Amino acid sequence: MAKAPLPVSPLAPKGGFPALPRIDGVRFASGAAGVRYQNRTDVMLVEICAGASVAGVFTRSSTRSAPVLDCERKLAALGESSDQGFGIVVNSGNSNAFTGRAGDQTVEAVTAEAGRVLGIPAAHVFSASTGVIGEPFAPEKITHILAELAGKLDADGADGAARAIMTTDTFPKGATETLTLSGHEVKIAGFAKGSGMIAPDMATMLAYVFTDAAISRAALQSMLSQATKRSFNAVTVDSDTSTSDSLMVAATGKAGNPQIADLDSTDAKAFYAALEAVLKDLALQLVRDGEGATKLIEVQVTGAANDADADRVARAIANSPLVKTAAAGEDPNWGRVVMAVGKSGAVADRDLLTIKFGDILVAENGWVSPDYREEQGAAYMKQQELRIAVDMGLGMGAATVWTCDLTHGYISINADYRS
Amino acid sequence: MAKAPLPVSPLAPKGGFPALPRIDGVRFASGAAGVRYQNRTDVMLVEICAGASVAGVFTRSSTRSAPVLDCERKLAALGESSDQGFGIVVNSGNSNAFTGRAGDQTVEAVTAEAGRVLGIPAAHVFSASTGVIGEPFAPEKITHILAELAGKLDADGADGAARAIMTTDTFPKGATETLTLSGHEVKIAGFAKGSGMIAPDMATMLAYVFTDAAISRAALQSMLSQATKRSFNAVTVDSDTSTSDSLMVAATGKAGNPQIADLDSTDAKAFYAALEAVLKDLALQLVRDGEGATKLIEVQVTGAANDADADRVARAIANSPLVKTAAAGEDPNWGRVVMAVGKSGAVADRDLLTIKFGDILVAENGWVSPDYREEQGAAYMKQQELRIAVDMGLGMGAATVWTCDLTHGYISINADYRS
Repeated sequence: MAKAPLPVSPLAPKGGFPALPRIDGVRFASGAAGVRYQNRTDVMLVEICAGASVAGVFTRSSTRSAPVLDCERKLAALGESSDQGFGIVVNSGNSNAFTGRAGDQTVEAVTAEAGRVLGIPAAHVFSASTGVIGEPFAPEKITHILAELAGKLDADGADGAARAIMTTDTFPKGATETLTLSGHEVKIAGFAKGSGMIAPDMATMLAYVFTDAAISRAALQSMLSQATKRSFNAVTVDSDTSTSDSLMVAATGKAGNPQIADLDSTDAKAFYAALEAVLKDLALQLVRDGEGATKLIEVQVTGAANDADADRVARAIANSPLVKTAAAGEDPNWGRVVMAVGKSGAVADRDLLTIKFGDILVAENGWVSPDYREEQGAAYMKQQELRIAVDMGLGMGAATVWTCDLTHGYISINADYRS
Repeated sequence: MAKAPLPVSPLAPKGGFPALPRIDGVRFASGAAGVRYQNRTDVMLVEICAGASVAGVFTRSSTRSAPVLDCERKLAALGESSDQGFGIVVNSGNSNAFTGRAGDQTVEAVTAEAGRVLGIPAAHVFSASTGVIGEPFAPEKITHILAELAGKLDADGADGAARAIMTTDTFPKGATETLTLSGHEVKIAGFAKGSGMIAPDMATMLAYVFTDAAISRAALQSMLSQATKRSFNAVTVDSDTSTSDSLMVAATGKAGNPQIADLDSTDAKAFYAALEAVLKDLALQLVRDGEGATKLIEVQVTGAANDADADRVARAIANSPLVKTAAAGEDPNWGRVVMAVGKSGAVADRDLLTIKFGDILVAENGWVSPDYREEQGAAYMKQQELRIAVDMGLGMGAATVWTCDLTHGYISINADYRS
């Protein structure tokens, strides 16, 4: 593990980590428990006030980690409201995945101790772990630090928390939006980790978003599920799905807006748009920190027979090693896009396909466009942010997926390593 | 295109191209038409005698090439027997894929000329093209050489034909079996190209197999479809499906065995086993010549709920960039295998999974095996041929898929290139 840190991704946001606003009702602490890394923080503790609404979405992997299974159970058992607060405890350095019954017991012990120091039941404490798969994880690795963390909870601690959950991300990822609901200013602030890793088995995405909006738990969960489709579930670095992916949102209600419960209300729509913007911002930062990434690629598919087909085509393109290596080589290789459309399994008609690189019309009517010049494509591919647009010419189905290129950096990070 | 040739894959069969037996009723010719490459052959012509049975399977890509579409139409229109022979014409250097109506016209012109020089109808001539996608392909590029090739057809020309259809494979691929059916010696000989490419867009697999067995067209097609599942459709180099994949088998009937028509007969079973052995041999040679490959990996899944689930798990492992880079790094990273099982979509129960590297029991009962030592796994991963075996512990479903590792070589071949 004693490798030199990776240089910050060339695609990192220019401004660095954003100044996240305080969210009334939420406090953060982080510390160095020594789970696996030395000389850095690796545990975060979050306290959320009583009365908050909490929602979450998690990896659908059938080998998901012990903390994910525990979060799913606890969320399902929650009532609509509660007079007790909530807690979140997250560590980096060990994913507590594929650790059998012992892993479940670790989650029990960790959330029990977090509940004790926060003065809330363990059933209100959610946890996540990110790091190596299949390594024993004794609860004492982190329980020893929780009382200390509870003593230094801070409304301004989100920055430190975002850094504590990084594995070998090359930059911390944060995003924020402010909006007005029925005359009340509402803030949303969140952070995420993932996708820029030097040690393997840490292909995990974790994201935590906080808002002072008043919103029912059912409405929050519904919005989260919808917005996830258009953000975190619409990005792919290498098609490999983690055992630990977790995304949670907590809404404290302290902004004083009339509680959002009706998804069709004006306030609900405004809040949804802001929530989706924050999630999308964080999701794209994951791609910007994709292992070895030098290009951010938006794949936009329109005109498919239906949305599911559009998604199939967009993912086939975004996950194609040949498309991704072409991007790395700045090669306007639209034939590989045709190949990926063909293998996707979606309904397609060669003679109705249109392909664009950015605004450059490359192919139409089943062949290269008569006006297309290879030099145009080659110049376009030199950009750091690329858009591949495919119109299937069949129907109204549309989907957008974001990915990065596949470079020697990815191989170096994942192969030039011995566990 | 003026790159130095790649060194022969370290996984190439030690004996080189096998000595293929003559197949009575089949003759080959090859020549240099100058489609794209200089100083090498790039067209093969095959003549197959009247009365032969012909069968084929093709890529299921929805953007498949003009020759593939033509072959499918012609095969569907064939009667059970014919008093006229057949022809096959194949070129390398241009795939005639995504070339619109002009591409269809090229196929018409090429197969018409091949029929003319062979004295058979164009409806009996099958073609394939492998090379760059989307580039105009005038029929004159190859028709000019066909009369010359017809004049030098040779029963011993299979070796030259196998070389003419290579793109940038690092070695030609051949396989043969001999068996006895009802007292008659029957030979099967075939060759294939694919997967070792220096220029992009040539991720195409072509294979041609010939036998002197007497077998009905229906029985041959049925056997071919079945054997393809267990050979060519069970290998993956990079999960990207070509627009040109074609596999054809021709049986001349010259061996004199009683014609095989009943798939349950002893002769049918013996012939099927030999045909599958030839196809599997060729398919594994494709993986051995996989771009940048340094390891051949067999992924064996047993105990799945059903065969489809087993196939899903095997492909999720075989296509996982993290599993493939771990193999490249000789890292016994079984956590990545767990991850791939989890993302496959197949029914899985963490606590019933068993994972082996070769004969080494790595994980069982939802956790690392108590007897497993990392040094054992690390020593095993140094081998050139690896087996990852996963038992799901659920049912009788089984599948085996072959792949290779993902190395810097793959990136170099596909990204360090400007079209």
